[in-house]
Amino acid sequence: MDRWYNIGADLPIPLPPPKDPDDGDSRIALLTKILPSALIDQEFTAERWIPIPEEVREAYARMGRPTPFRRAEGFERKLGVKVHIYYKYEGALPVGSHKLNTALAQAYYAKLDGAEEVATETGAGQWGMAVSLAAALFGLKATVFMTRSSYNSKRQRVTFMKAYGATVYPSPSDVTETGRKFNKPDHPGSLGIAISEAVEYTLAGERRRYLPGSVLEFVLIHQSVIGLEAIEQMPEEPDYAVGCVGGGSNFGGFTYPMIGMKLRGEGFEKTRFLAAESAAAPKLTSGDYRYDFPDAVGVLPMIKMYTLGHDFVPPAVHAAGLRYHGAAPSLSVLKRLGLVEAVAYRQEEVFEAAVMFARSEGIIPAPESSHAIRAVADLAKKLPPGSVIAFNLSGHGLLDVDAYEKAHVA
Amino acid sequence: MDRWYNIGADLPIPLPPPKDPDDGDSRIALLTKILPSALIDQEFTAERWIPIPEEVREAYARMGRPTPFRRAEGFERKLGVKVHIYYKYEGALPVGSHKLNTALAQAYYAKLDGAEEVATETGAGQWGMAVSLAAALFGLKATVFMTRSSYNSKRQRVTFMKAYGATVYPSPSDVTETGRKFNKPDHPGSLGIAISEAVEYTLAGERRRYLPGSVLEFVLIHQSVIGLEAIEQMPEEPDYAVGCVGGGSNFGGFTYPMIGMKLRGEGFEKTRFLAAESAAAPKLTSGDYRYDFPDAVGVLPMIKMYTLGHDFVPPAVHAAGLRYHGAAPSLSVLKRLGLVEAVAYRQEEVFEAAVMFARSEGIIPAPESSHAIRAVADLAKKLPPGSVIAFNLSGHGLLDVDAYEKAHVA
Repeated sequence: MDRWYNIGADLPIPLPPPKDPDDGDSRIALLTKILPSALIDQEFTAERWIPIPEEVREAYARMGRPTPFRRAEGFERKLGVKVHIYYKYEGALPVGSHKLNTALAQAYYAKLDGAEEVATETGAGQWGMAVSLAAALFGLKATVFMTRSSYNSKRQRVTFMKAYGATVYPSPSDVTETGRKFNKPDHPGSLGIAISEAVEYTLAGERRRYLPGSVLEFVLIHQSVIGLEAIEQMPEEPDYAVGCVGGGSNFGGFTYPMIGMKLRGEGFEKTRFLAAESAAAPKLTSGDYRYDFPDAVGVLPMIKMYTLGHDFVPPAVHAAGLRYHGAAPSLSVLKRLGLVEAVAYRQEEVFEAAVMFARSEGIIPAPESSHAIRAVADLAKKLPPGSVIAFNLSGHGLLDVDAYEKAHVA
Repeated sequence: MDRWYNIGADLPIPLPPPKDPDDGDSRIALLTKILPSALIDQEFTAERWIPIPEEVREAYARMGRPTPFRRAEGFERKLGVKVHIYYKYEGALPVGSHKLNTALAQAYYAKLDGAEEVATETGAGQWGMAVSLAAALFGLKATVFMTRSSYNSKRQRVTFMKAYGATVYPSPSDVTETGRKFNKPDHPGSLGIAISEAVEYTLAGERRRYLPGSVLEFVLIHQSVIGLEAIEQMPEEPDYAVGCVGGGSNFGGFTYPMIGMKLRGEGFEKTRFLAAESAAAPKLTSGDYRYDFPDAVGVLPMIKMYTLGHDFVPPAVHAAGLRYHGAAPSLSVLKRLGLVEAVAYRQEEVFEAAVMFARSEGIIPAPESSHAIRAVADLAKKLPPGSVIAFNLSGHGLLDVDAYEKAHVA
């Protein structure tokens, strides 16, 4: 794969650009100071295809790309359906999720800017692990601000971030002013505080860049490697392509290259696209379409999206990666146009599907990805024999033992 | 791959057969009662090639075989060597280790015998996870006796065994006579007690079979799929082929097909074979070559091997899979003949290599496999430029967070 795909070039209506709120502080100007410069260009580009730099292509290959694309025959039998089910498996990457695809690109561009260090925030730790590894591979220092509640409960990902060489601070930390304001030993932290800390930390030092894991469009552009590979690997075009949605990056990465071909009349005419979200954060099925901050405290520019409000606090569910109030602007446009459909699931029904998948396909799926599996199971039962479903298995659940324990599946 | 390789057919001297001790109780007769019958045949066969049943071939493919074979260029650069380093990656299997290769075969043969349930013991849980998944895939019930100390400390693997549908008892349990003899709440258990419980449990029920994960020759025959694939995948013959050794199954699986070709004059003339063991259980470097029990309590037949004595209790080290007193009979013969060399490492030097590998190749290696990585690093530094090393990365360490935490690498 030598280029990424940008759906911005094919959308029937222009993508609403990020904008600043009316309080006089330009978040867009801030972004240009802290992001690797190539990412700013990618965020606003109208190009359909973005060349993947050779160093990133090499890193993709060394980390195991292309990832497997498999038929789930055991799961089909378990469900008792005559539907063909295929999955793209991003858990094959060493950090266990798709997050590495954009982390590698972002770390590379940071290095290209002359940066020596990258900083970011992380909740459950998937993004922090991806950044920690990407930084190690490109010879950069990594500093990760992790919400303290997760830092204390997700020791696996903390340990492995450190094994990759990253410095990990429980947030609120004492290394930023923002952190010191909140830093009491029992403060659980929040992703909003952690973002503010990472941004402040980036601004405070020389040769530092901030790497965001969330809904910005360039993140989805990098993730398009998933779908571009899948298109080459799939033996038949699906009736449904399915993915789970937190902010939209694994879903967009998997489906956009197919949606683009559909929009351009080059294939996937019959394919429908289904986003599976958590009933704990149902922005696509129950949110408003409006400008809102992508982060809880308003550090980043506002984007137009389906949102539950940037101050929405989702209930605690095991699929931490889906506990997000908004959906990427491009995904929101596609949903609005009816090109993407959405369904929300409660976690009990999700874990039931996860266990069926594990027992028939071997892979313990991530709680997030299991939402897609639930959707696939439901579709498979109602579609006529001979139908085809393809989904993105965005990660494995081997680091989510708490989720499996608490879900009482075991 | 449609056949396994049996090195017994090519050894320069006959493999010493299992034998019973002089106490009058025939362990060999016991084995024939509890093992799937095909395994008894395989244990004693003189055939060089054993056809892999179609159902097992399909299961291998569905679980991700062939596994990747990769060049470790990042690790080469990190070491600063001009040596080519390749690795076969068995951690790509869904349970995270090579153990699944024989578990699938054994579960299949149990089913062929009409069994409805399989039983086994497990220490750290790698073997238990492999059996749990294999049983689920072949529609069998799985019952696992896990040493209580591990049951209490390794919740990841306990949880995932249960997610696969297995019943897991901390051993000593209250479901066998053996277990009840020892069953006090604070008894930590031992692998010997757990084996005895699994054997007793198997004998006590209808349609049950016992699946052993350890040093029996058929286990190594099934693992030969690793090396047979690697031979097809490797672009150049190595000067050294390296693996870690617990009982010998991943090492034998990787190297025997190459050693066989060397013995038959068909290739690998220049290749040397290096076994990396733990200094905590240094049977190949410090053990005696004699008949001994493969299990701590003498339930199984005696085999001739390098051994530290079946009552040897290795110190607690993080690489639980290497805490084993003996080495498979075929491996012991090869070591005795000088066809296999051995080296023992302390765990501190092993974790240093593990972290270097993680930061340059992305994969967090299992503590066991990290012994091979340490050996590779040492070889790479002393071999002339242009030399080639291939090793078996038998598993990932994502379920070994305790080991990484306690090793203070993080």
